[in-house]
Amino acid sequence: MTEPTPSQPAPAEKPAAAAPAGGEENKGPSKSALKKAQKEKEKAEKKAAAKARELAERQKKEAADALDVSKEDYGELPLCGSAEFKPTGLKREDLSNVESLEDKEIVFRCWVENARVQSAKLAFLNLRQGLNTVQAVVAASDKLSKQMVKFCGSVTTESTLVVTGLVKRVQEPIKSATIKNFEIHITKLFVEVKAQSPLPLQVDDAERPIPSGLGDEEEQADDGKPIVGLNTRLNNRTIDLRAKINHSIFVIKSGVCALFQEFLGQKGFTLIHTPKILGAASEGGANVFELKYFDRPAYLAQSPQFYKQMLIASRFQKVMEIGPVFRAENSNTARHLTEFTGLDLEMEIQENYHEVMTVLEDLMLFIFKELNTRFKKETDLVRSVYHVDEFKLPESGKVPRIPFQEGIKMLREAGEELGDYDDLTTPQEKHLGRLVLEKYGTDFYVLDQFPLAIRPAYTMPSPHDSKLSNSYDMFMRGQEILSGAQRIHNADLLADMMRKHDPPIDPNSAGTKDYVESFRYGCPPHGGGGFGLERIVQFWLGLPNIRMTSLFPRDPQRVIP
Amino acid sequence: MTEPTPSQPAPAEKPAAAAPAGGEENKGPSKSALKKAQKEKEKAEKKAAAKARELAERQKKEAADALDVSKEDYGELPLCGSAEFKPTGLKREDLSNVESLEDKEIVFRCWVENARVQSAKLAFLNLRQGLNTVQAVVAASDKLSKQMVKFCGSVTTESTLVVTGLVKRVQEPIKSATIKNFEIHITKLFVEVKAQSPLPLQVDDAERPIPSGLGDEEEQADDGKPIVGLNTRLNNRTIDLRAKINHSIFVIKSGVCALFQEFLGQKGFTLIHTPKILGAASEGGANVFELKYFDRPAYLAQSPQFYKQMLIASRFQKVMEIGPVFRAENSNTARHLTEFTGLDLEMEIQENYHEVMTVLEDLMLFIFKELNTRFKKETDLVRSVYHVDEFKLPESGKVPRIPFQEGIKMLREAGEELGDYDDLTTPQEKHLGRLVLEKYGTDFYVLDQFPLAIRPAYTMPSPHDSKLSNSYDMFMRGQEILSGAQRIHNADLLADMMRKHDPPIDPNSAGTKDYVESFRYGCPPHGGGGFGLERIVQFWLGLPNIRMTSLFPRDPQRVIP
Repeated sequence: MTEPTPSQPAPAEKPAAAAPAGGEENKGPSKSALKKAQKEKEKAEKKAAAKARELAERQKKEAADALDVSKEDYGELPLCGSAEFKPTGLKREDLSNVESLEDKEIVFRCWVENARVQSAKLAFLNLRQGLNTVQAVVAASDKLSKQMVKFCGSVTTESTLVVTGLVKRVQEPIKSATIKNFEIHITKLFVEVKAQSPLPLQVDDAERPIPSGLGDEEEQADDGKPIVGLNTRLNNRTIDLRAKINHSIFVIKSGVCALFQEFLGQKGFTLIHTPKILGAASEGGANVFELKYFDRPAYLAQSPQFYKQMLIASRFQKVMEIGPVFRAENSNTARHLTEFTGLDLEMEIQENYHEVMTVLEDLMLFIFKELNTRFKKETDLVRSVYHVDEFKLPESGKVPRIPFQEGIKMLREAGEELGDYDDLTTPQEKHLGRLVLEKYGTDFYVLDQFPLAIRPAYTMPSPHDSKLSNSYDMFMRGQEILSGAQRIHNADLLADMMRKHDPPIDPNSAGTKDYVESFRYGCPPHGGGGFGLERIVQFWLGLPNIRMTSLFPRDPQRVIP
Repeated sequence: MTEPTPSQPAPAEKPAAAAPAGGEENKGPSKSALKKAQKEKEKAEKKAAAKARELAERQKKEAADALDVSKEDYGELPLCGSAEFKPTGLKREDLSNVESLEDKEIVFRCWVENARVQSAKLAFLNLRQGLNTVQAVVAASDKLSKQMVKFCGSVTTESTLVVTGLVKRVQEPIKSATIKNFEIHITKLFVEVKAQSPLPLQVDDAERPIPSGLGDEEEQADDGKPIVGLNTRLNNRTIDLRAKINHSIFVIKSGVCALFQEFLGQKGFTLIHTPKILGAASEGGANVFELKYFDRPAYLAQSPQFYKQMLIASRFQKVMEIGPVFRAENSNTARHLTEFTGLDLEMEIQENYHEVMTVLEDLMLFIFKELNTRFKKETDLVRSVYHVDEFKLPESGKVPRIPFQEGIKMLREAGEELGDYDDLTTPQEKHLGRLVLEKYGTDFYVLDQFPLAIRPAYTMPSPHDSKLSNSYDMFMRGQEILSGAQRIHNADLLADMMRKHDPPIDPNSAGTKDYVESFRYGCPPHGGGGFGLERIVQFWLGLPNIRMTSLFPRDPQRVIP
């Protein structure tokens, strides 16, 4: 028996249980039997037809494959399960080096920004790897099939690929890619991991600014593109974070941490890790998260303050810590988080606490300088999206140390009404920032000698004015990034100041007692400060909301994802 | 009127209300009046005597001061309150540089290990600064008073001093100090901060080993000196931490962190900070601390696992994190803490997960090498106290990657009874450590391809044996320091494995859903691992208890200080 050709359906097989030919009417099969036979016949016919179609398609594909010169050069890879341990030795290129790879055939992993079929013979893809994007072309030829062009042009956005291609210089700079002078002429393309479609959020939308205001309502930009609200972005954070702007923010954040440790490490600071679970709500007890610690209550650390000072009492001389800080503050603003990263330091002083301020100022000047060189590309990328001004630093290299009373005077002269020992409101702080920028030409400065009453109980009072204290804040673009002070290193004075504090603190309470007692045994004079890492990043870049500087931000409304 | 000499008490003043001289008996004062007068007379006499004594003492002191040629060169400094901001420019020397300061007069801050008056003319002090100790001599001369000798020899242990003195070479090496060839001839000595006496714990006692066993009971060493229990030390941790051995441990711990970041930073890893407060107890829900997050429950992160993988899904390619990890495990052993520091990394893989193992092995070899050079002094100091062997590394530089099944075989041949897919007990792990040391000559090695059933649900199964998995542990001296694996990067497979896991995990539950969904949009294949920082330090140094490697350790019994 010859097989049917694709165009000829196979003849239906005779049903086995069909009625015998001829025969007497009354002896014929019943109606139901006839119906059944008819059904079975149809079923058999359908089955045969399906079988034929399947066969026909297989043959068609085989025929096409026989003609597809590229059939080994594209497709979907199986799930990477590490079947082989021996590496192939195939080098995956970093697209940052594309300049040096002109006219070479390279292999690289990337993902799809978008892919589009231009014609049966031509498709374009925008491919991304890290902060680089490149245009890729796939064109049918006698060595590259139309089938491959179709496949490449239809790959879903955000799929991960392994691409082989020639690096070719282009005549006209490519607008849509960060790599302007080269494109890739694809020779092989494999989908390593296919992205499901549609995406819950477009990465392209995540590249554009968040809406003004609290950032929650969707808007439409002048160009008609959607402005996606911050909450939508944060609800789909793993997609949102793919945006180049977000990669840049977190590369900078990582950089600030590294620079902090580099500078202080060279100055002999020891990196410490103090406990985040505390047996007592030591620093006053307000705004603290309580947890169940086996059969008793415990609390999350609001700062490493007591511990870093206890380590100075343990003669560690200079300590730094990078760690989470927890604040149970029900503040739903653009500059508060319930969990953020503290950059803390504490050090012995020899003569006065301005030694600490000098270290802190030099540290920040170092960080700014290095951000401007090592992370210029990322800084520029983010600032350009939000149209943010350069971060101005004093030309003299000397950071203004403005006495708090002088700050008050500047504000009063500018029309603000406030008393000599009042704390500054956030708008007043920002106002002072503008005045300082005008007068000193810097976005970074220090306020010194804060009123004692508005500082923590462990702050050393000023020897010159009992209503002032040896304490300071540091500001970027008019917003506080650090609070610091000389601390009281005498147990009796400390206990006294705690009792007199508003609200009073019992120096003999659990948790506090160990801290106070640690100053009975020759603790040297010392001071320090604590930065909010996210604030440094936010104000360096001029971002409208602090949540943008936390990978998975936590606020009173948000603990997921 | 001449003032009384010190040896002559001043004459008592006549009481103003005394009875008039003479007079008739019946006209005389009443008995009670007499009594009263007598009392007042005595009171006045006492007062006068006290006044005289006070005057005498003052004069004596003035006379002595007049004779005290050193009166400007010693004493107690007032509380450092930063009265002056202008620095004096006086350089405080670091005793590490003593070699280059021979015959120079230097100023340095230090603290008192002990001080003793040898004679009226001679006192010795042992002074410490950082890890250095030096002997200091103060000898009476025509330029240095006996009063000063007495003062210096009586300074309380652990007081903080500012000392001026000549650096002098000695003939015989000094046994009691780390600086053997020099001593300080004191010319000035000021107590900057006086330590209260007695100390709750002697720093000298903290330099000696903790008791064997669980470290809680006090013992006596062969030399009769007390062996103070670990709990006593931890209850007085700020004094305990002053010991050189403890400073060394934490300088090394700080060093491991810096080396971890240095190595991975150069390889392009981004430092991340993932949330420690989670809206859901994502990884199974056992051993997790619950807290009150405003009006709802929340949980402390048991690891950054889900988040570091979600960042790989966000295309971060290579991430590292150093942060606290919380385990509500009621384990009171020498190697468990409820809060410790995780050193985590996660990275894309190109072909197979052995790429991750290579990074991890190279990382640890780099850390060991640098600890042996940059932190040799501290390492030697700690190991000498506990008589710990050198940490052996493979001479070939190749870290043994032992398949789990091969490890089982080695243990069976050595007499252990266990099944092919059983997990190893702690004693079996230690036994295997000894066998590996014997066979491969290394204290550091990897076990590869663990049974799937004993690993987390997100572990990639082995493509060769469905009962095995692409996962590994790393060991130091036979104890686990890292757990790692290739992870499942396909959402459907992950959800399936979660449901089949023992105990099952609902892939659609809060917290877990975002994690699983993040693998729908083209997440590249990846793997990673998490080290326990305290374990690396513990096993590098060969310490008997992990609490010694945590500044303020947390265990089920301890949340204070």
